[in-house]
Amino acid sequence: MVFSTAVLDTVDELCHTVADLHGELTRNELVIWTAGNVSARVPGEDLMVIKPSGVSYDELAADKMVVTDLHGELVHGNLAPSSDTAAHAYVYQHMPEVGGVVHTHSTYATAWAARGEPIPCVLTMIADEFGGEIPVGPFAMIGDDSIGRGIVETLRGSRSPAVLMRNHGPFTVGPDARAAVKAAVMVEDVARTVHIARQLGDPKPLDQKDIDRLHERYRNVYGQQEIR
Amino acid sequence: MVFSTAVLDTVDELCHTVADLHGELTRNELVIWTAGNVSARVPGEDLMVIKPSGVSYDELAADKMVVTDLHGELVHGNLAPSSDTAAHAYVYQHMPEVGGVVHTHSTYATAWAARGEPIPCVLTMIADEFGGEIPVGPFAMIGDDSIGRGIVETLRGSRSPAVLMRNHGPFTVGPDARAAVKAAVMVEDVARTVHIARQLGDPKPLDQKDIDRLHERYRNVYGQQEIR
Amino acid sequence: MVFSTAVLDTVDELCHTVADLHGELTRNELVIWTAGNVSARVPGEDLMVIKPSGVSYDELAADKMVVTDLHGELVHGNLAPSSDTAAHAYVYQHMPEVGGVVHTHSTYATAWAARGEPIPCVLTMIADEFGGEIPVGPFAMIGDDSIGRGIVETLRGSRSPAVLMRNHGPFTVGPDARAAVKAAVMVEDVARTVHIARQLGDPKPLDQKDIDRLHERYRNVYGQQEIR
Amino acid sequence: MVFSTAVLDTVDELCHTVADLHGELTRNELVIWTAGNVSARVPGEDLMVIKPSGVSYDELAADKMVVTDLHGELVHGNLAPSSDTAAHAYVYQHMPEVGGVVHTHSTYATAWAARGEPIPCVLTMIADEFGGEIPVGPFAMIGDDSIGRGIVETLRGSRSPAVLMRNHGPFTVGPDARAAVKAAVMVEDVARTVHIARQLGDPKPLDQKDIDRLHERYRNVYGQQEIR
Repeated sequence: MVFSTAVLDTVDELCHTVADLHGELTRNELVIWTAGNVSARVPGEDLMVIKPSGVSYDELAADKMVVTDLHGELVHGNLAPSSDTAAHAYVYQHMPEVGGVVHTHSTYATAWAARGEPIPCVLTMIADEFGGEIPVGPFAMIGDDSIGRGIVETLRGSRSPAVLMRNHGPFTVGPDARAAVKAAVMVEDVARTVHIARQLGDPKPLDQKDIDRLHERYRNVYGQQEIR
Repeated sequence: MVFSTAVLDTVDELCHTVADLHGELTRNELVIWTAGNVSARVPGEDLMVIKPSGVSYDELAADKMVVTDLHGELVHGNLAPSSDTAAHAYVYQHMPEVGGVVHTHSTYATAWAARGEPIPCVLTMIADEFGGEIPVGPFAMIGDDSIGRGIVETLRGSRSPAVLMRNHGPFTVGPDARAAVKAAVMVEDVARTVHIARQLGDPKPLDQKDIDRLHERYRNVYGQQEIR
Repeated sequence: MVFSTAVLDTVDELCHTVADLHGELTRNELVIWTAGNVSARVPGEDLMVIKPSGVSYDELAADKMVVTDLHGELVHGNLAPSSDTAAHAYVYQHMPEVGGVVHTHSTYATAWAARGEPIPCVLTMIADEFGGEIPVGPFAMIGDDSIGRGIVETLRGSRSPAVLMRNHGPFTVGPDARAAVKAAVMVEDVARTVHIARQLGDPKPLDQKDIDRLHERYRNVYGQQEIR
Repeated sequence: MVFSTAVLDTVDELCHTVADLHGELTRNELVIWTAGNVSARVPGEDLMVIKPSGVSYDELAADKMVVTDLHGELVHGNLAPSSDTAAHAYVYQHMPEVGGVVHTHSTYATAWAARGEPIPCVLTMIADEFGGEIPVGPFAMIGDDSIGRGIVETLRGSRSPAVLMRNHGPFTVGPDARAAVKAAVMVEDVARTVHIARQLGDPKPLDQKDIDRLHERYRNVYGQQEIR
């Protein structure tokens, strides 16, 4: 496939970004061995940048990343794309607002997924980032559209950028790859905290109107929007 | 705002101290992403130094810190102050003995906070540092005085430098920022140990007179006061 | 013992590989102090390369590795071989398809072993890597053939490359030492995730036919086989 | 106090050893802030080398270590000795076979101590290193002989080099400081593993004769005694 210079520059930059963001997965202890992946949509193109399959995180430099179309077919790069490529591609095809997708098997989020139980919204941090409970998606086989379909159908009815795929693990989305990685870090953190809270009793529920106010405020005033 | 040279030197030193102390939060695994903050009172002034909002811990050098008055209004620095600034400011206004404030969402302390349950004083380390059980503060919305008020009202009736804000996480105070960070490290450590003890039975309670003796001794003879 | 130059080269390379792989044990927090070991079969010879006994992981360079025959007798090297050498040797003698063996006392896998309970196949990752539940082997004394016999008898009836030796800890095997280390990392990860899932209820079981399809796919299409 | 050159050399070497061994406490996550300490007996003298009080682990170089007599009185160094010095000194006075003492508040061992419950011998690793269950010592106030007395009385009736002091934390001993640190690492590891095993059922007990055989073998043939 021949890219224009502008697309080539964007792809090159995204390869660096995506390679670096895999470092956040290991640093935040969300993945072991090669079991997790980050992708980014190439804006304005029907393309995505994703991790190659079965390559260890130490070797994941920008030049190892691969580019596929939104059917998961390799268009650039020397390695086979991640075995989760079909799921990422399906999400980009059906959720145009999504610019980044992350998949891990992080321990606590996967434990909720193994029970098929959503994470209840009992912390201000969950209201902030997820806007309510974190939902469970269906059990789906790896390799075809099933996982992608399950992700999209579950996230459409939710404010959450994270879905716990049953017996499998979390997928997260965001406007860009960094936001999707942030959601992957946060979903494991709240999965762990609520798990631990539940071990010795029942967390106090939050009122729906408090959840709404917290989520609204977080989306609008948190960070450096105001004066940067 | 124009500072005198002496105040400028103090502010500059506190910016370095506060930036460095954020490193203790990550090192002790009390925070993820940007979710935690340290502040220090500028002694003798109605000012405080605090972390900017939504900036990652890796980028937190001294020159990123911001200075606000004790109503949380920015008086120095280029970035928006932490979204928890109002809470820190309220504490400095109403607790003149406090020189440092820390807020985290550390896992085990937040789990007790989610259940609204104080941490009982069943370890010598808790008697030493907290002088009794670690209390729970009210649920409060982020962004106005509510959190600050909840912290101050709860800590006034307690020897503890830590309060578990309901469904939210711990806030700690100290005579300076380093002491508040130490309390943040300790509250997570004892929250974890007592949680784990409770999972398989009931920890033995300590006698009130033993708690008093341990706390007294710790405040007076521990460390290097004697010969340094 | 006198080796041909070709064997000497192979042994030398395996000493480096095995020394490096011990680094994965510490990095993945599978071992403390000196309590874990990796070995590799010397292909085509009745020999294996293994860690010396009681040497700390920091000092484990290639030149510390030792070579034994498949009765566990030292044939090359200056240090006593690992106290688990007899078990490794027995596995190589009786499972010709095995090229690497790993033993750890990793926390969660050992906890299942202490209860004598197999890890149920309730995650896609377990179906992928282990092809079903991870079995428990008998209690066996350290130092003679008993452990090796227990490993071989248990693994023969299973697709799993890992066995949980009762009251002791996991042993894993693979076509080479790296694959055995991967299995050691994965068995701890799934032991932890399923433990945590079970703490708050029952994980959903996977259908046998889904397990079979996942395992089949993983063995055939995962990684870089296709285009590398 | 004036030391002979030979004693001075020994003291100097022990200061380096003890300072380095504190690095093992942080590396194995047994301590936070300043809450743990290692000491070593000066062989043939009524002296010991110990950590100063309230100094952070980063600053713990050899020249910060202090020397006390076996009543805990400072005889060399510029800093106040650890607040646990009296306990260490009492152990050296009453257990001439002990050359090193370690105290931590490591999480899982302290959790068993909070419940006042010994750790049962249900793993080969416990039989190896501890020779049976790991016993609980009495509740004792910090600062005088009470802790030391509790340690000595408890360890005298046991093969274990570790005692869990009630509501406080573990103390471990060994023929030298490194062996005591090893026991501190091992007691936390087995405290954690048995805790986790117990969360989902009852670990299988080991037979007393198997415990005896394992302990005997471990003390006699493990490590590099044979050929080094």
